[in-house]
Amino acid sequence: MAGSPSRAAGRRLQLPLLCLFLQGATAVLFAVFVRYNHKTDAALWHRGNHSNADNEFYFRYPSFQDVHAMVFVGFGFLMVFLQRYGFSSVGFTFLLAAFALQWSTLVQGFLHSFHSGHIHVGPPSPLLSSPFCPIPSMINADFCVWAVLISSGALLGKTGPAQLLLMALLEVVLFGINEFVLLHLLGVRDAGGSMTIHTFGAYFGLVLSRVLYRPQLEKSKHRQGSVYHSDLFAMIGTIFLWIFWPSFNSALTALGTGQHRTALNTYYSLAASTLSTFALSALVGEDGRLDMVHIQNAALAGGVVVGTSSEMMLTPFGALAAGFLAGTVSTLGYKFFTPILESKFKVQDTSGVHNLHGMPGVLGALLGVLVAGLATHEAYGDGLECVFPLIAESQRSATSQAMYQLFGLFVTLMFASVGGGLGGDYPFWTPPLDSQCYED
Amino acid sequence: MAGSPSRAAGRRLQLPLLCLFLQGATAVLFAVFVRYNHKTDAALWHRGNHSNADNEFYFRYPSFQDVHAMVFVGFGFLMVFLQRYGFSSVGFTFLLAAFALQWSTLVQGFLHSFHSGHIHVGPPSPLLSSPFCPIPSMINADFCVWAVLISSGALLGKTGPAQLLLMALLEVVLFGINEFVLLHLLGVRDAGGSMTIHTFGAYFGLVLSRVLYRPQLEKSKHRQGSVYHSDLFAMIGTIFLWIFWPSFNSALTALGTGQHRTALNTYYSLAASTLSTFALSALVGEDGRLDMVHIQNAALAGGVVVGTSSEMMLTPFGALAAGFLAGTVSTLGYKFFTPILESKFKVQDTSGVHNLHGMPGVLGALLGVLVAGLATHEAYGDGLECVFPLIAESQRSATSQAMYQLFGLFVTLMFASVGGGLGGDYPFWTPPLDSQCYED
Amino acid sequence: MAGSPSRAAGRRLQLPLLCLFLQGATAVLFAVFVRYNHKTDAALWHRGNHSNADNEFYFRYPSFQDVHAMVFVGFGFLMVFLQRYGFSSVGFTFLLAAFALQWSTLVQGFLHSFHSGHIHVGPPSPLLSSPFCPIPSMINADFCVWAVLISSGALLGKTGPAQLLLMALLEVVLFGINEFVLLHLLGVRDAGGSMTIHTFGAYFGLVLSRVLYRPQLEKSKHRQGSVYHSDLFAMIGTIFLWIFWPSFNSALTALGTGQHRTALNTYYSLAASTLSTFALSALVGEDGRLDMVHIQNAALAGGVVVGTSSEMMLTPFGALAAGFLAGTVSTLGYKFFTPILESKFKVQDTSGVHNLHGMPGVLGALLGVLVAGLATHEAYGDGLECVFPLIAESQRSATSQAMYQLFGLFVTLMFASVGGGLGGDYPFWTPPLDSQCYED
Repeated sequence: MAGSPSRAAGRRLQLPLLCLFLQGATAVLFAVFVRYNHKTDAALWHRGNHSNADNEFYFRYPSFQDVHAMVFVGFGFLMVFLQRYGFSSVGFTFLLAAFALQWSTLVQGFLHSFHSGHIHVGPPSPLLSSPFCPIPSMINADFCVWAVLISSGALLGKTGPAQLLLMALLEVVLFGINEFVLLHLLGVRDAGGSMTIHTFGAYFGLVLSRVLYRPQLEKSKHRQGSVYHSDLFAMIGTIFLWIFWPSFNSALTALGTGQHRTALNTYYSLAASTLSTFALSALVGEDGRLDMVHIQNAALAGGVVVGTSSEMMLTPFGALAAGFLAGTVSTLGYKFFTPILESKFKVQDTSGVHNLHGMPGVLGALLGVLVAGLATHEAYGDGLECVFPLIAESQRSATSQAMYQLFGLFVTLMFASVGGGLGGDYPFWTPPLDSQCYED
Repeated sequence: MAGSPSRAAGRRLQLPLLCLFLQGATAVLFAVFVRYNHKTDAALWHRGNHSNADNEFYFRYPSFQDVHAMVFVGFGFLMVFLQRYGFSSVGFTFLLAAFALQWSTLVQGFLHSFHSGHIHVGPPSPLLSSPFCPIPSMINADFCVWAVLISSGALLGKTGPAQLLLMALLEVVLFGINEFVLLHLLGVRDAGGSMTIHTFGAYFGLVLSRVLYRPQLEKSKHRQGSVYHSDLFAMIGTIFLWIFWPSFNSALTALGTGQHRTALNTYYSLAASTLSTFALSALVGEDGRLDMVHIQNAALAGGVVVGTSSEMMLTPFGALAAGFLAGTVSTLGYKFFTPILESKFKVQDTSGVHNLHGMPGVLGALLGVLVAGLATHEAYGDGLECVFPLIAESQRSATSQAMYQLFGLFVTLMFASVGGGLGGDYPFWTPPLDSQCYED
Repeated sequence: MAGSPSRAAGRRLQLPLLCLFLQGATAVLFAVFVRYNHKTDAALWHRGNHSNADNEFYFRYPSFQDVHAMVFVGFGFLMVFLQRYGFSSVGFTFLLAAFALQWSTLVQGFLHSFHSGHIHVGPPSPLLSSPFCPIPSMINADFCVWAVLISSGALLGKTGPAQLLLMALLEVVLFGINEFVLLHLLGVRDAGGSMTIHTFGAYFGLVLSRVLYRPQLEKSKHRQGSVYHSDLFAMIGTIFLWIFWPSFNSALTALGTGQHRTALNTYYSLAASTLSTFALSALVGEDGRLDMVHIQNAALAGGVVVGTSSEMMLTPFGALAAGFLAGTVSTLGYKFFTPILESKFKVQDTSGVHNLHGMPGVLGALLGVLVAGLATHEAYGDGLECVFPLIAESQRSATSQAMYQLFGLFVTLMFASVGGGLGGDYPFWTPPLDSQCYED
C-alpha cells in the first residue's frame, strides 16, 4: 500500500522541502520589506523626546506573553487528548504556529502598517487607541495563529504537517483580509476576536473537514479516544487557556479602563461557563458522571462568547449570563450535535471546534450586535471614543453600528466558507490513510 | 449498596441542580448589586483627568495573573498526586474555584466596597495604599479561593463536588468576615495571608475533616498513594506555586518599594525552605532516599511562613532563617505528625495541609508579631506609613501592633474552628462510601 | 557492592549534611553582608522624592517572572525525558537552583554591588542603563542558575545531588568572575548571555563530563532512552522555554526600545529555528520521521544564537537567518556529532548541551562580533549610548568593540574549561555506579 519507492521518497522529502521553502521565502520577504518601527528602532526612538518608561512595551508585553502561552502551552496541550497522537498534536501545533506567526507578520504588515515600501514591526504609536486600532505586531500575529490552530483542531489526526502548512499559507491571507475588511473598512469592533478569530477559524476548519470527508474513517476509530494520562495532559492546556483568557480578550483594547473592564468581564464569563459546563455535563452524562471532554473544552466557551463585547459596557451580570449560556450551548453541542455533524453533515470535527469556537463565536458576535446597539453617550461618557469611535464622532448611530457588527459576522462566515472550500484543491496533498489516522 | 432507584436519581441530580442554583443566585445578586468602579467604567474613568497609563491595571494585573496561575495550575495540579483521582482533583479544584471567586466577589464586595447600594468592582483608587489597604477585586477574590482550596485539600478524595460547593458557600462568608475583622477592625497587617488565608483555610479544613472522621477509611487505603506519573503531574503544581509565590505575597502590598521587598523576601525564604526540605527528607527517609511528598509540599512552606512579614523589614537573613525553619517543620510534620493526627486526633488530612499551611501559617503569624514588635521609625523611615500606618500616625506603638497581630491569630483560629465545626450539619451531604474514596 | 555499613551510613548523611552546611553558611553570609538597596528598603526609598510607580520593579518584575518560569518549569521539565529519572531530573534541578540563586546573590553581590561593607540587593538605580549595566539581583541570580543547570544537563543521570551542589559551589564563583571580566573589564555586550551563560555553562559541563568519563556506561544504556509520557513531560519544558525566551534575552537590556527590539528579534529567531529543526529532523530521520529529541531541544537554539546580538540592530531578517542556522546546526549536532563526541572525545553529554547551548552559544558570540563590528552612528542614533556606550562616548571604534567581543568568547571558553577541568578533584565525590545511572 505504500506506493512505489520513488513516491515514498517523494513523500519523505515533502515536509523538509516545504519547511525549507517556506522559511526561505519568508526570510527573503523579511529582508526586502520588514523594518523596525520607531518604537523598536534604536535611532528612530531616540529622535523623539521620550522617556523609556513610556514605551508601549510595558503596557502590552505582559499581555503578549499571556497570549503567547495560550497559543503554545494552551493550544498545544489541549490537543494532546488523543491517546496515540500526543507528539503530533503538540509538535504540529508548534510547527504550524512558528510558521504562521512569520507569515501573518508579513500579511498583516502589508495590510496594516505598510508605509514607504516597508512593513514596520513593533508596538503602535498612540497610547490612546485611535479609531482604527493600531496593532502591536507580535500580539496580532499570535491572534492570527489562533485562527489557524482552531482550524487545525477540526482536522487533527487526519492530516500531516505538510498539509497543515499549506492550509496555513492560505488561511493566514484570508484571515488578514477578513480582519482588514471588518476592522478597517466596516469599522466593526472585535477586540477579542469572536468573529475574526473564533468564528473564522472554526468555520474555515469545518468546511475544510467537510471537503476532506473520509467515509472510511471508522477504521481508525479505536484510536480516537483518550487515555487517563492524555486527558490530564489536555487539562494543562485547558487551565492555561482559562487563566489567560482575560489577557487574550484585553490584549488589543484601548489602554486603561478599557483593558481592565475587558479582563474583568472575561474573568466573570469564564467562571459562569465553568459552572454551567459542570452542571450540564453531569446532567447529560451516564450515571451523572462528568465527561472530561466537556470540562476540557466547554468550560472555555465563556472566553469565546465575550470576545466581541467584553470591551463594551457589558456589565458584570451580562458577562455572567453570557458565559452561562455559552457553557450550556457548548456542552450540549459536544453531547448531541457533534454526532449529527458527522452523520448528517459529513463533517468530522476531531476536537469539537464547532462547540468551542463555532457556536460560541457566533453567539459572541450576536452579543456584540446587541451590546453595540444599546450603546449610549451616557453609559460610556468620554470613554465612547475608545470603544465606539465612529459613534463618538457622530458618524454612526448605535443602531447603525449594530448593523455593521451583524454584517461583519456574515462577511466572516463567507470568507471562512470560501477559504475552507478551496482546501480540496491544494497541490501535493497526501494525507495519511484512513487506517493510519490518530497515530503519531 | 446503591440505594433505591429514586435515591440514586436524586444524587445524580444533586450536582447539576446545585451548580445551576448557585450560578443563578449569584447572577441575580450580581445584576442587583455589582457595578464597575471608576477605574473600570468607561464613563466614570474619563470624567477624571487621568492618563490611561496611570490605571492601576498596569501595576496589579501581572501580579493577578501570577496569583491566578497559582490557583488553577498550581493548586489544581498539586492535588493530582493520587493515582486514581487525577480528574477529580483538577476538575473539582476548577469548579470550586470558579464558584468561589464569584461568591467571594459578592461577600468581599459587601464588606469592603459597598457604597450607595452597590458593590464596585475593579482596582482600588489610590496608588499609594491607604491605611486600610484598598483591594483589587480580582486578586482578593482569588485570595479567598485559596483558603477554600486549602480546606478542600484536607478532604480530598473523601467528598464529592456538591459537598465541596456547600463548604465553599459557608467558608467564603466566614473568610470575608474574618478578613474584615483582622484588616479593618483590628488593623492587623497580613498582606500574604499567613493568617487570613493559610491558617484560616487549614484549620477550617482540618476541623471539618475531624467532624467527618471515617473510622473505616482504610478500605480505600490502597488507592491513597501516588504512581510515578501522578507524582510528576503534581510537581507541575509545586513548581508553579513555587515560582509565583513572590507575586502572591506582594500582590496586595503597597506599590513600589513595599512590593519589591515582599517579592525579594519571599524568593529568599522559598530557596531556604527548599534546601531544608531536601536535607530533612533525606535525613528521615529510608536509606536516605528523598520522599516526593516532602519535595512537592514542604519546599513551599517558605512562601507561607513569610506571608505576614515579607512586606516588613524582615531583612534577607530573616527571610532565609524563616524559610529554613518552615521547611524543616513542614517536612518533619509529614513524617511524624500526620500519622499521629489521624491515629490520635482522628483528623484524616489527605494532602497534608496541616504541614504545608497550618503549622507554617501559625509560625508566619508569630513571625509577624515579632517583626511588627521590632518596628522603629528609624528602620522604616517614611515607608512606615505604607507598612504600619497606625504606628506612623502614632495611634499605636510597635508593641501594641504586635499584640493586635497576636490577637488576629486567635481570632482566625476561632473563626476557622467554628466554621469547620459547622460542617457536619450541612443538608444534602452525601459523601462517597468508605470503600469508594480516592477514586474518580 | 554497597561497601561497608559505615561507608553506606556516611553516604546517606552526605546530602543532608551538605544541604545544612551550605544553607547555614549562606545564611550567615547573608546576615553579615546582604542589605536591601534603596529601591527595596522602606526608609531609603522614601528619602528620595519618588513616585511609587517609578520603582523599577514594574519594568523588570514581569521579565523576572518569565525567567524564573524558564529556570524551574522550563529546565526542570525539559530534563524529565529520561524514562526512569523523572523525579531526580525535576527534583535535583529544583535543589540546585534553590542553592545556586542564593550563592550567586552573594558572589555577584561582592563583584557588582558591594559598597561600604555590604551587598545591596534589589533593582538597580538608573532607568537608563549606564555603560556598566546595573543588574537587578533576582534576575541576575537566575541567569547564573541557568549556567549551572546547563552544566548539570551534561552530567544528568550520572551524578548525585551532593555532587551537583559541589559543582555549583565552584561554578557560581567562576561564572561571576567571568561575567565581571567580560561586562565590566572588557566592556563586552552580552545581554542574553550567549557567552556568559550558554557557552560558559555548556563547556564547563562538557569538560567536567570528559573528566568524569565512564567507559562502562553502556551498563545503564537501556535506561537512557525516553518513553511516551516522559517525552510529553519534556515538551512542557520545551514550550515554556520557547515562549519566554524573548523575556530572557530582554530581561537586562536597556529599558524602552532596546527591550522591545530584543524581544522581537528573539521571537523571530525562535520561529525560524523551529522550522529548520523540523525540516532537518525529518530529512535525517529514519523514514522521514521526526525525532522528539530534536524538537525538544534544537527548536530552542534560535533563542541561544541571538543572546548577544538581539539587543543590537540585528534586523528582523538577521534574526530569522540566525535562528535558521542555529536550528540546523543543532539538529545536525544531535544526529551526527553527539555520537562522535562520546566515541572520539570521551564526552558523555546526556541531554546534548553541546548541541543546544555549546555550538549555538559560540555562533551567537560570533554573530555578536559581526553585528558589533557593523555598528554605526547612523544606524543607532542616540540609541547607541544604550547598546554600545563605549562607542557612543568615542572610547572605542566599532571594529575595536568587535575585537573585544571576540576576546570575550576566548576568555569565556578558558574559564569554562579550567573550571570544568577542576571537577575531578572535588572531595566527597561519590557518584552512582555505572550500572545504576539514569535511575531515580
